[in-house]
Amino acid sequence: MDLSLSELATYLGAEIRGDGSARVDGVAPLSSAGSSDVTFIADPAYRKQLDSTAAAAVIVGTNLADDVASAALVVEDAYLAFAKTTQLFDRRPRQPEGVHPRAIVEDGVVLGAGVRIGPGAVIGRNTHIGDGTEVGAGCVIGSDCRIGRDCLLFANVTLYYRVSIGDRVRVQSGAVIGSDGFGFAPNKGKWERIAQLGNVRIGNNVEIGANTCIDRGALEDTVIEDDVILDNLIQIAHNVHVGQGAAMAGCVGIAGSTHIGKGCTLAGGVGIAGHLTLADGVHALGMTLITNSIDEPGVYASGTSHMPAKQWRRSAARFKQLDSIAKRLQKLEKSQEGNA
Amino acid sequence: MDLSLSELATYLGAEIRGDGSARVDGVAPLSSAGSSDVTFIADPAYRKQLDSTAAAAVIVGTNLADDVASAALVVEDAYLAFAKTTQLFDRRPRQPEGVHPRAIVEDGVVLGAGVRIGPGAVIGRNTHIGDGTEVGAGCVIGSDCRIGRDCLLFANVTLYYRVSIGDRVRVQSGAVIGSDGFGFAPNKGKWERIAQLGNVRIGNNVEIGANTCIDRGALEDTVIEDDVILDNLIQIAHNVHVGQGAAMAGCVGIAGSTHIGKGCTLAGGVGIAGHLTLADGVHALGMTLITNSIDEPGVYASGTSHMPAKQWRRSAARFKQLDSIAKRLQKLEKSQEGNA
Amino acid sequence: MDLSLSELATYLGAEIRGDGSARVDGVAPLSSAGSSDVTFIADPAYRKQLDSTAAAAVIVGTNLADDVASAALVVEDAYLAFAKTTQLFDRRPRQPEGVHPRAIVEDGVVLGAGVRIGPGAVIGRNTHIGDGTEVGAGCVIGSDCRIGRDCLLFANVTLYYRVSIGDRVRVQSGAVIGSDGFGFAPNKGKWERIAQLGNVRIGNNVEIGANTCIDRGALEDTVIEDDVILDNLIQIAHNVHVGQGAAMAGCVGIAGSTHIGKGCTLAGGVGIAGHLTLADGVHALGMTLITNSIDEPGVYASGTSHMPAKQWRRSAARFKQLDSIAKRLQKLEKSQEGNA
Repeated sequence: MDLSLSELATYLGAEIRGDGSARVDGVAPLSSAGSSDVTFIADPAYRKQLDSTAAAAVIVGTNLADDVASAALVVEDAYLAFAKTTQLFDRRPRQPEGVHPRAIVEDGVVLGAGVRIGPGAVIGRNTHIGDGTEVGAGCVIGSDCRIGRDCLLFANVTLYYRVSIGDRVRVQSGAVIGSDGFGFAPNKGKWERIAQLGNVRIGNNVEIGANTCIDRGALEDTVIEDDVILDNLIQIAHNVHVGQGAAMAGCVGIAGSTHIGKGCTLAGGVGIAGHLTLADGVHALGMTLITNSIDEPGVYASGTSHMPAKQWRRSAARFKQLDSIAKRLQKLEKSQEGNA
Repeated sequence: MDLSLSELATYLGAEIRGDGSARVDGVAPLSSAGSSDVTFIADPAYRKQLDSTAAAAVIVGTNLADDVASAALVVEDAYLAFAKTTQLFDRRPRQPEGVHPRAIVEDGVVLGAGVRIGPGAVIGRNTHIGDGTEVGAGCVIGSDCRIGRDCLLFANVTLYYRVSIGDRVRVQSGAVIGSDGFGFAPNKGKWERIAQLGNVRIGNNVEIGANTCIDRGALEDTVIEDDVILDNLIQIAHNVHVGQGAAMAGCVGIAGSTHIGKGCTLAGGVGIAGHLTLADGVHALGMTLITNSIDEPGVYASGTSHMPAKQWRRSAARFKQLDSIAKRLQKLEKSQEGNA
Repeated sequence: MDLSLSELATYLGAEIRGDGSARVDGVAPLSSAGSSDVTFIADPAYRKQLDSTAAAAVIVGTNLADDVASAALVVEDAYLAFAKTTQLFDRRPRQPEGVHPRAIVEDGVVLGAGVRIGPGAVIGRNTHIGDGTEVGAGCVIGSDCRIGRDCLLFANVTLYYRVSIGDRVRVQSGAVIGSDGFGFAPNKGKWERIAQLGNVRIGNNVEIGANTCIDRGALEDTVIEDDVILDNLIQIAHNVHVGQGAAMAGCVGIAGSTHIGKGCTLAGGVGIAGHLTLADGVHALGMTLITNSIDEPGVYASGTSHMPAKQWRRSAARFKQLDSIAKRLQKLEKSQEGNA
């Protein structure tokens, strides 16, 4: 991939400063960009690297444009323009068009135009796959699934039966969608299984990370709305509903029937109990434990952060005395008033 | 699936109130049930929905039976009866009987009657699979395994060699059983591997979630007793022993050689250190960190739950001063006594 | 496997006490070892079991050698010698040499001498695999990868394209290496994907656990240096750099662009925020949350450990009042001084 700054400026809707005929063939950080790379600056903290960068041009917002001595592509949102630029230089290999001779396509499957099915993939009975969708090697798609157009399932993804996925959805390897929700009724020291009769419905433009699990619903469906992005190793339990545009980082776990509002962001390792509701625009910091519904948008956190273990042991021990500490403090305050 | 209320009553051992000839073809929640659905009420909190439900009949315990105006199936335990009912309406597609032509069955494999092996599955040398067991597409079963009867391995499950599994065990996709335990001896800044010579032994009626990992033992075996249910993304380290009927929700991690008692329940994200023993009937709330053995049954917890981040930062900072706070409080109390 | 104590002593560089012609065919713990097993003692706490063990010989350090009544193999580091001994008795079945007829090897692949490729494995275009490396059944290796010699990929491992792996690297089942990093630019309530143009570079003697994920870099590479050991279900985000000899237990999560120093050890469930640097020799206890860089080697921790839930609820509630408690204590101290 190789294009001129003018072509890139047109693609980005950028104002160009410098020689538009200069050509770029890659994207790189300010510090390591070469003379044929385009780079970007979004965070003013990196401003000092502007002078030393060897990049052919810098993608920059109007706020920092005047700090750029070299050629520049001036845009409204430099980070967004950078994101769009990376997509031009993506050299991800694709499966060839069509069905690999070593793939298995069962009866009643309907494949759209330009579908790509990799070696060893299995497409179950009566499943429909939309135009331009690619299914990687070793994927197993259950029967009666609906997968939209221009989706990308990387290798070794598993979809159970009757899973529905929208358009332009990307699923990383090892993800499992439609597995049985964890539903059991206690029965004299054993567990009676609740058959999971619901399905999973995933909207458009959704991203699902590697080894992430999304369980099917018990009676009704588990739902992931449009524009949701999920990182790796996330657990989405049965009947969870994730609102449009929500984002979750790695290792998040959400228990059954919890509703996550639109635009919520959950940092890594956040855990949310079941049957809760998070309002739109709730943001949780890393490893936050959420045990009650949250009605107010805003930033939430829990726990404590790292400290030397020796000091931590003392604090952790005192934590167990906190109620007594608080009560004794109240007692002192009272007697103080008495003295006054 | 379609049956009469009388047939369902017989199946559940329920007392029927209303027209036993009415037919039902599904299960649904009180709020969304249609006229051909059976529904249930277990939690009195939903009592107010009883009047408005359109369900053909309500599965109800004796405690709430008189609140049901419509047809009812009266049982001792409504939630248990609901669980059994869902199994009647499960429409999970199955692999056809026999070995799929695109499966790979190595020498010395012994398959019971009615075994179903999906496309792309690999069954290793000398492995035995019991009557009626189904192995999904893309599963890889190592050599010398023993899998009981009426088990269900969904697609893309991996069993290593010499893994033993009882009867009626269900394993969700992406689960890995028998992987090497994490055992290494430090050796001058490097790590010398301890070959994991033990195996994994799993009892009857065990449920294993998607992408859950159960490591093989170092010298002796990792053991999961009968009736244990494990959710998704759980880590069971080498030589862990999980007692009969224990239940673990998603993202639980248990370090090496820890014993979990019978009937213990671990909520999501619980972490347990190695070489500990939990008594029978220990219950841990979400994201609890367990660093010592627990001798007394009961409910345990740790950490703190979510609060606004601004307020949280102050609390988290003070946590680091807790020992000093406690000591200063003691000092004040002493001087107080002095004054008295 | 069956060898004499003399042969084992030679292998370990041990001083032998007792009959060197005695033969052993297994390794077992002190308590359960039989007369043809070799056992070991590293922790003096087990000293009392020395008298009752039936083992043919005990691997022991010079510090405890005189406590051993039976035959002994005296070494400098008993635990290290034990580790080396287990490797002699490892009976892991291997794939036969060569490419299984049901494997898929694409054009331009270069296979070294003695390579073993299992059934259903897929090796992508132009990938090179070094001498003696084994690729398990169902593995999918992307195109243009470089895998060194004497590596072992267990079944159902996924490598994306352009991933580079050194020599003697072992990867457990379900691991995903080279998946897209979680990079997106916000765009009016949606997310614009940042194509992940970097790769993953893994050194020599690295161990990667089951269902562990290592994302490819955004612009530059994600790097795992030599001698790193990673347990199961670990998330390594894009552009993380893990230093030589670091060790991480199960369920650890490391956010993007964080650098982990050489020889760091992270216990289970540790979470580390993005763009941080941990010095060499940092050790974090289980479930520690690390939110800032750590410059000093040492042991760190956070959070609190388990307590009875009833008592915990009180402490957790008081945690939210901690800042007020501390301020009120200061006030009392001041007035105290006033009184003095």
